[in-house]
Amino acid sequence: MCITVIGGGLIGASWAALFLAHGHQVVVHDVAPDVELRVRQVLRQVQPSLEALGLSLDPETPRLRVEPTLASAVRLADWVQECGPERLGFKQQLWAEVESLCRADAVLASSSSGITASMQATRMRTPERMLIAHPFNPPHLIPLVELVPGKRTAPDILQRARVFYESLGKRVVVLRKEIPGFVANRIQAAVIRESVSLVRQGVVSAEDLDVAVTQSLGPRWAVGGPFLSAHLGGGPGGIQGFFRQFAGGLQLLWLHMRLRPVLLTRGAREALADEVLHSYGRDSIEVLSARRDAQQNAVLRALRPAAEPSSKLSSEESP
Amino acid sequence: MCITVIGGGLIGASWAALFLAHGHQVVVHDVAPDVELRVRQVLRQVQPSLEALGLSLDPETPRLRVEPTLASAVRLADWVQECGPERLGFKQQLWAEVESLCRADAVLASSSSGITASMQATRMRTPERMLIAHPFNPPHLIPLVELVPGKRTAPDILQRARVFYESLGKRVVVLRKEIPGFVANRIQAAVIRESVSLVRQGVVSAEDLDVAVTQSLGPRWAVGGPFLSAHLGGGPGGIQGFFRQFAGGLQLLWLHMRLRPVLLTRGAREALADEVLHSYGRDSIEVLSARRDAQQNAVLRALRPAAEPSSKLSSEESP
Repeated sequence: MCITVIGGGLIGASWAALFLAHGHQVVVHDVAPDVELRVRQVLRQVQPSLEALGLSLDPETPRLRVEPTLASAVRLADWVQECGPERLGFKQQLWAEVESLCRADAVLASSSSGITASMQATRMRTPERMLIAHPFNPPHLIPLVELVPGKRTAPDILQRARVFYESLGKRVVVLRKEIPGFVANRIQAAVIRESVSLVRQGVVSAEDLDVAVTQSLGPRWAVGGPFLSAHLGGGPGGIQGFFRQFAGGLQLLWLHMRLRPVLLTRGAREALADEVLHSYGRDSIEVLSARRDAQQNAVLRALRPAAEPSSKLSSEESP
Repeated sequence: MCITVIGGGLIGASWAALFLAHGHQVVVHDVAPDVELRVRQVLRQVQPSLEALGLSLDPETPRLRVEPTLASAVRLADWVQECGPERLGFKQQLWAEVESLCRADAVLASSSSGITASMQATRMRTPERMLIAHPFNPPHLIPLVELVPGKRTAPDILQRARVFYESLGKRVVVLRKEIPGFVANRIQAAVIRESVSLVRQGVVSAEDLDVAVTQSLGPRWAVGGPFLSAHLGGGPGGIQGFFRQFAGGLQLLWLHMRLRPVLLTRGAREALADEVLHSYGRDSIEVLSARRDAQQNAVLRALRPAAEPSSKLSSEESP
């Protein structure tokens, strides 16, 4: 495929690396004069990471081209991945130009972490082919892509986007509503808020807070998300047991953290439990726990050298 | 050492497994008549996990004993690890009894996730030797132990606790203030709140929310906590660059999430940046990023079989 990356900053260059490693033709467009130099430097930096993941990348590949004008950059594109500045006006103007310069069947994706497709597309004649494909930094490494269709995005474009990003080895999550911060950044914002609050209150140092997270929640959430973790934290009762044991304490804790509680009414608990059991209920708690523990162990083993000062240097300096 | 575990439930049995795997004598006390059977069953279940981490454990080891009375259980203990029910009255009564039955130099640690040492110790004559040593479930696997001294805990007991838990391979964080939920569970509560909110609002399914977390934030936080991640997410400006770029957006997002914002004033940002640079400033952003990416890759590789359906069964069924 011929993919045009608009914006050759870190996100754009990382996307370019991933596209190239999967054999695509990549055109980068950026107003900076030294963009090719900078993108190829990123390609050299990320090459070892991609090779460790089983992909190969030649940082000097001729499949990468830089085009100085938007018209020449998007003219032949099958796919446009926008990675420009996070300014509404810029994106609205850009898409209005891009759609008049590119092929009628090109798909237009924005990497924006916050400006919804509906807002970006207000000046487009063909908003049905535009959507958000928000990566988590750095895109060549972190699997998640959040797809967020706008009010006018066509269902078949959303489906093509899912297939395309999955073909790059990404894990795709489709949001059903446009919401500021999408999913991952909202959860991250919740964590940053409490982290800042705890350090500002003098409960722990910033470094100890990082230790607390990397030595507990991080490895756990690398293996199972909040809902699977709750399901496996509720004893034999699963998610229902979790709510029975912890819903009251959670709501008190939210109040103490000065968070408006999310009401875990009986109806809310039942609806959540239904969803969790629909997703995970095929396997018993024992089977799920054994699988979680095995993966947990694999993650801890992978991280272990970093936690042991004696082997720290050697392991960290040879990726 | 001779360690007495009070309460033979999942947390107690998991602690017992870890203590045994490190060569200690372990006495378990529980009112349930079948406690030995249940604890040895947990030992059999967790044996593969411990072996994968390089520890050996014989589930039939005679170093494990069960004692039916509190007096006989704690009489010779060097260390008491309380894992009983989360009820204030129970713990207050327990410690008053334990201190009169055990040796004068025994250290008394509670695994409580929420009841502070100061509250637990109100009926003790020797509160200086009592503190919270809160593991993250399951204790034999997850490295974190939060040590939370009470108002009257002696500094040398805190120091002995740090040395003891580190000798078990745990990563210790000491809290400077007693606060409900301590650190890790408060951060977890913030995440659960937003997760429940997003699913209840119909933005994503519970399963997709789990995917979003396991494919982005989890692996990231397994490698670097929120502050190191912010430092590496701010471009060449590090943590200061992060606040310049994102402080405004974060505060808006907190408002949209109906979270009372933590005010990131100039003074607050500078104090946080000072702490972060004190902890991480010895290395350049480039060196820290390269180390982070290498560890990130190791974690993703460790998890990779689980993400590939073709190899899913074989990898998940053989821990």
